[in-house]
Amino acid sequence: MTVARRTAQTTPDRPRSHAGERAVVHDLPDTRPSRVVVEGVRPSVDGGRFPAKGVVGTPVEVSADVFADGHDHVAAALRYRYGTEAWREMPMHPLGNDRYSGGFRPDRIGLWEFTVVGWIDHLGTWVADARTKQEAGVLTSVDLLIGAELIDGASSRAGDGERTELQRAARSFREGSADRWLDDEVLERAAWLHGGRRPLGALGGTRTVWVDRPLAACSAWYEFFPRSTVDGSNRHATLADAIDRLDHIAELGFDIVYLPPIHPIGETNRKGRNNSVAATETDVGSPWAIGSSAGGHTAVHPDLGTLEDVKRLVAAAQERGLELALDIAFQCSPDHPWLQQHPEWFRYRPDGSIQYAENPPKRYEDIVPIHFENDDWKALWVALRDVFLFWIDQGITAFRVDNPHTKPFRFWEWLIAEIRATHPETILLSESFTRPRRLEALAKLGFSQSYTYFAWRASGTELTEYFTELATEAVDYLRPNAWPNTPDILTEQLQDGGLPVFATRALLAATLSANWGVYGPAFELGEHLPIRRGSEEYLDSEKYQLRRWKLDQPRSLAPLLGRLNAIRRAHAALRQDRTLAFHPTDNPQLLAYSKTAGEPAPDRVLCIVNLDPANSQGGWVNVQTHLLDLDDGQSFWASDELGGERYGWGPGRNYVRFEPGDPPGHILALEPR
Amino acid sequence: MTVARRTAQTTPDRPRSHAGERAVVHDLPDTRPSRVVVEGVRPSVDGGRFPAKGVVGTPVEVSADVFADGHDHVAAALRYRYGTEAWREMPMHPLGNDRYSGGFRPDRIGLWEFTVVGWIDHLGTWVADARTKQEAGVLTSVDLLIGAELIDGASSRAGDGERTELQRAARSFREGSADRWLDDEVLERAAWLHGGRRPLGALGGTRTVWVDRPLAACSAWYEFFPRSTVDGSNRHATLADAIDRLDHIAELGFDIVYLPPIHPIGETNRKGRNNSVAATETDVGSPWAIGSSAGGHTAVHPDLGTLEDVKRLVAAAQERGLELALDIAFQCSPDHPWLQQHPEWFRYRPDGSIQYAENPPKRYEDIVPIHFENDDWKALWVALRDVFLFWIDQGITAFRVDNPHTKPFRFWEWLIAEIRATHPETILLSESFTRPRRLEALAKLGFSQSYTYFAWRASGTELTEYFTELATEAVDYLRPNAWPNTPDILTEQLQDGGLPVFATRALLAATLSANWGVYGPAFELGEHLPIRRGSEEYLDSEKYQLRRWKLDQPRSLAPLLGRLNAIRRAHAALRQDRTLAFHPTDNPQLLAYSKTAGEPAPDRVLCIVNLDPANSQGGWVNVQTHLLDLDDGQSFWASDELGGERYGWGPGRNYVRFEPGDPPGHILALEPR
Repeated sequence: MTVARRTAQTTPDRPRSHAGERAVVHDLPDTRPSRVVVEGVRPSVDGGRFPAKGVVGTPVEVSADVFADGHDHVAAALRYRYGTEAWREMPMHPLGNDRYSGGFRPDRIGLWEFTVVGWIDHLGTWVADARTKQEAGVLTSVDLLIGAELIDGASSRAGDGERTELQRAARSFREGSADRWLDDEVLERAAWLHGGRRPLGALGGTRTVWVDRPLAACSAWYEFFPRSTVDGSNRHATLADAIDRLDHIAELGFDIVYLPPIHPIGETNRKGRNNSVAATETDVGSPWAIGSSAGGHTAVHPDLGTLEDVKRLVAAAQERGLELALDIAFQCSPDHPWLQQHPEWFRYRPDGSIQYAENPPKRYEDIVPIHFENDDWKALWVALRDVFLFWIDQGITAFRVDNPHTKPFRFWEWLIAEIRATHPETILLSESFTRPRRLEALAKLGFSQSYTYFAWRASGTELTEYFTELATEAVDYLRPNAWPNTPDILTEQLQDGGLPVFATRALLAATLSANWGVYGPAFELGEHLPIRRGSEEYLDSEKYQLRRWKLDQPRSLAPLLGRLNAIRRAHAALRQDRTLAFHPTDNPQLLAYSKTAGEPAPDRVLCIVNLDPANSQGGWVNVQTHLLDLDDGQSFWASDELGGERYGWGPGRNYVRFEPGDPPGHILALEPR
Repeated sequence: MTVARRTAQTTPDRPRSHAGERAVVHDLPDTRPSRVVVEGVRPSVDGGRFPAKGVVGTPVEVSADVFADGHDHVAAALRYRYGTEAWREMPMHPLGNDRYSGGFRPDRIGLWEFTVVGWIDHLGTWVADARTKQEAGVLTSVDLLIGAELIDGASSRAGDGERTELQRAARSFREGSADRWLDDEVLERAAWLHGGRRPLGALGGTRTVWVDRPLAACSAWYEFFPRSTVDGSNRHATLADAIDRLDHIAELGFDIVYLPPIHPIGETNRKGRNNSVAATETDVGSPWAIGSSAGGHTAVHPDLGTLEDVKRLVAAAQERGLELALDIAFQCSPDHPWLQQHPEWFRYRPDGSIQYAENPPKRYEDIVPIHFENDDWKALWVALRDVFLFWIDQGITAFRVDNPHTKPFRFWEWLIAEIRATHPETILLSESFTRPRRLEALAKLGFSQSYTYFAWRASGTELTEYFTELATEAVDYLRPNAWPNTPDILTEQLQDGGLPVFATRALLAATLSANWGVYGPAFELGEHLPIRRGSEEYLDSEKYQLRRWKLDQPRSLAPLLGRLNAIRRAHAALRQDRTLAFHPTDNPQLLAYSKTAGEPAPDRVLCIVNLDPANSQGGWVNVQTHLLDLDDGQSFWASDELGGERYGWGPGRNYVRFEPGDPPGHILALEPR
């Protein structure tokens, strides 16, 4: 309160008009602004800076706050379009508390745009008021005349057929009779279509939705190393050998087969088995040490085959309903041709030596990172883009992108837009195991799917918090992909728990998330030995050596994986993330959650997972029927899609019990009974 | 998956360069974009569409997500300015998880602007890496040479003094010795000031803060009807009489005295006592039926006095440390001069009669609403603005605005900007008892303070939820003002509970909210009779008749009100809303909450309120020391500012008990012991 209360600012240099003369006017708008405010629209990613994500054929649900001063009713409409086509319009409906909702069903892949408009519904307001007055017996002939005038306005904007009807209504009102007209739909329709909307209230700007094909939003990935696809021998397998794996993967119901980099592998500073710094003559090296005299990011490792073999593998996958995804890892071995062709794309140290990858005090001498802060960055960006376009031209429709968070965010934003300009069907999975803001930023700028922290979320509380966050705050722009393992990640839980824990983790990944994946051979067989205690690296990791996988073992998890994928295909509820909801249990080792879908038919799935499969675990699940689109108090049949049993359950507490050796949980399809 | 996986879009009309020729490039930026991303800035009201609110002398705390790809460190700075002055800069500090915070302390009323920038801190990254390598014993002479080159760059941008020192560091590095330099502040300072920031990462756009004088953010309002300020007689009191009330109000520690409209009152359709439709000759009418042959919104009711009397009242208030607030109610009695002068500002019905205010089926024939959808709206807006400017010219610095939600939002936004262009010190309190989105919209577009739903939040759960929402989501733009009663609102709780409930409600309002107010005489004396059961209107409401108030009664709540305002003045913690936190109790009738402040000295206040003063209530309060800026496990002295006792309390459970007749709660000032 030390500030002067009155400054000497009411000085005569600003004329006022208290006696009638006109004062100085600042910024008075040219035309009368709308009384309607539109704000708080969803989806809206960073205020419209980035597109939300949608799927062809699935409605984009839009909501907004729409309100005006005073007592008049407002009407709201959703306007949307594909690309730069003409705008289309859908009415929005009040949800209460000034919130309106509507939706549109995009029918094409690409960028859709929408906005929300609102206006005062004068005719609708009058109809509602007149009904109220009629019920209270205070509707007067003057009130009816006001209505007639409003109808005149609407009828002047209506087509011939409607106009005749509206004129009859106006005539009836002028004759002092409301007759049947107040309840006639013709007035409601006329209010919407011809009531007059000027001045129109609108959101400041538009929002966009990038619409993908369905596989971008629901997919099961299976990763394997093609060089390790011969079981009975030590030889380096080829892409032709890898074709033999496809039947197995298709039988398990996966959608996408994903291969680590298939390019020539550097020899300089090549890593040996178990990541040893001294490779021997026979060591095959890491596929992520990309490039040799045989070529770089657009070449095929000679031991794997040729470009023709890639195309044959693509075609073989397609024949089996699979898509082939390649790994794009923008980094080079010291032998990559780019080091000679484009030395300016790399960093050199004052002694002239090349700058290897570092994470001080560690140093990775088999990898040279690309230096994005170089003066030839435009050529670099174009070359990296052309790597994608090259593989797209070979028939590749999906990519897993290695460590995108170590390349500039603006680079990816540009690159993804470039790819989508001609190949909007491309799916890009971001392998960004980094801090949350960076993981999210990559999703916002365009990656179709994102690896998540699922592998390290072990307890029920951790899983509940994390997947709730993913299904709420991030759901408009980030599509989680849950992997229980990868060639880099063998979690402590998997190391210690044996096959039952692998089963639990598979069940969680496949049902918590519409997108999931496994590093397949190792997962099926429960590969669990770390290189050393405290490390998440595998012993004898396939990253550095050939492996032989005997996939037809009786102890394999393959049947479970196949069953999980079959259940996902049977249940639309499991093919999306938005309706995920958790249900309380009285045992922290029992995690219960549900998903529901309304299309194509009502679908409700309740999963109850035993997080501690080594022990007997029982407890009460408190089923929240309102989260399941069931009526309060509604009983239901619960059919276990894993175990096969069918239970008659009710709302509230239901008992479950798991013994060691049981399936890892129930996947209950619910139906009202 | 019905969408074609591959379209025929890889056609030859888009040349590609897999064999070396350059492909078509879309939208490649001209200069290399920054690697740094800045987003998620706070405060940010609707993405920057509206200013946040601040106070002169109180830091505006700004935070943002700032991050880059890869391993390099980023640095972030807050840039801010008053109006269009030169930008100033403050460093921002990492909070973890890529969040950075900083602040600035505005020293002037008006519009401040800020933004956040970030850049790669190459020198800082090198220093940190070099320290790590040194500790691991792997720091090489080449590493030191890299550092020397970075220092060369910084030193070329530094001033003479610093340059010498930096050159010494570079020399030492070139000689192969890190010496003491890695830990020397000179490198840190050089990294910040001279490390080079191009290309700079920035938030998309700026954000604004409207900075008010402190009274806008912390105030105690006292409302009274000047015509009812003579105790011993039935005569219509004057503004001169009202001056006699000011000593009392000042003694109670209020800041603002607020008068209902003081304009001439219409005679046509005047309301009688208790809102009866037939007024008698002696009925004084409602002050909100504004305008008669004696004038409109810029005239003073002849029975109250003259413009000179208003000025005298303003001066008398100022002498006592009070500000006078007028009520601005933009509506007219049928006798308002504007109906003759500007018939186009009102609505007429087809029979030529004027459109009275309606809420169908109800009709209010003493009030004519202004019709904002008229063709002469520009003149109307200017005239309404000039009403404010007129009273500002008479020395009025604060206004309570009646029903702003029944006038267009864009109108208020324009009007408030107009007022602030010359009178930024003006305080505007929005009386918008309406739906939440409308209440919030008025706060966003510029009202200094907002009436809240406090009056109807009775239970501990309701109060906790509501004030938590106000202190979190809305706190950047909405300043709540809590009123236990108004001339329109006598809640059921007050009707039933007697003086003890009035006391409880006063305690809650004065401590939950930095701004509070009472409809004074009625509140002090516990006026609690409704016109009828189920109504919130008073019996014999002052709105329609003169009243005599004997304020010197022994049963008055005046001493409590005075004590509450004195406690608010003594405790900075109670003079803001941002740090409000609730503490669990085991008795739902006991509500516990705290506020803390760091300036001018650490201040901690813990309130424990008995919501059921008619009965004995006791229970355990679970004091959360971390919410009180106390160390875990810290014991503290709790001095009751209401009761006078001092307790030695500890973290966790502490027992309290209230008997009927006790003060309504404890206001405990806490100090570590």
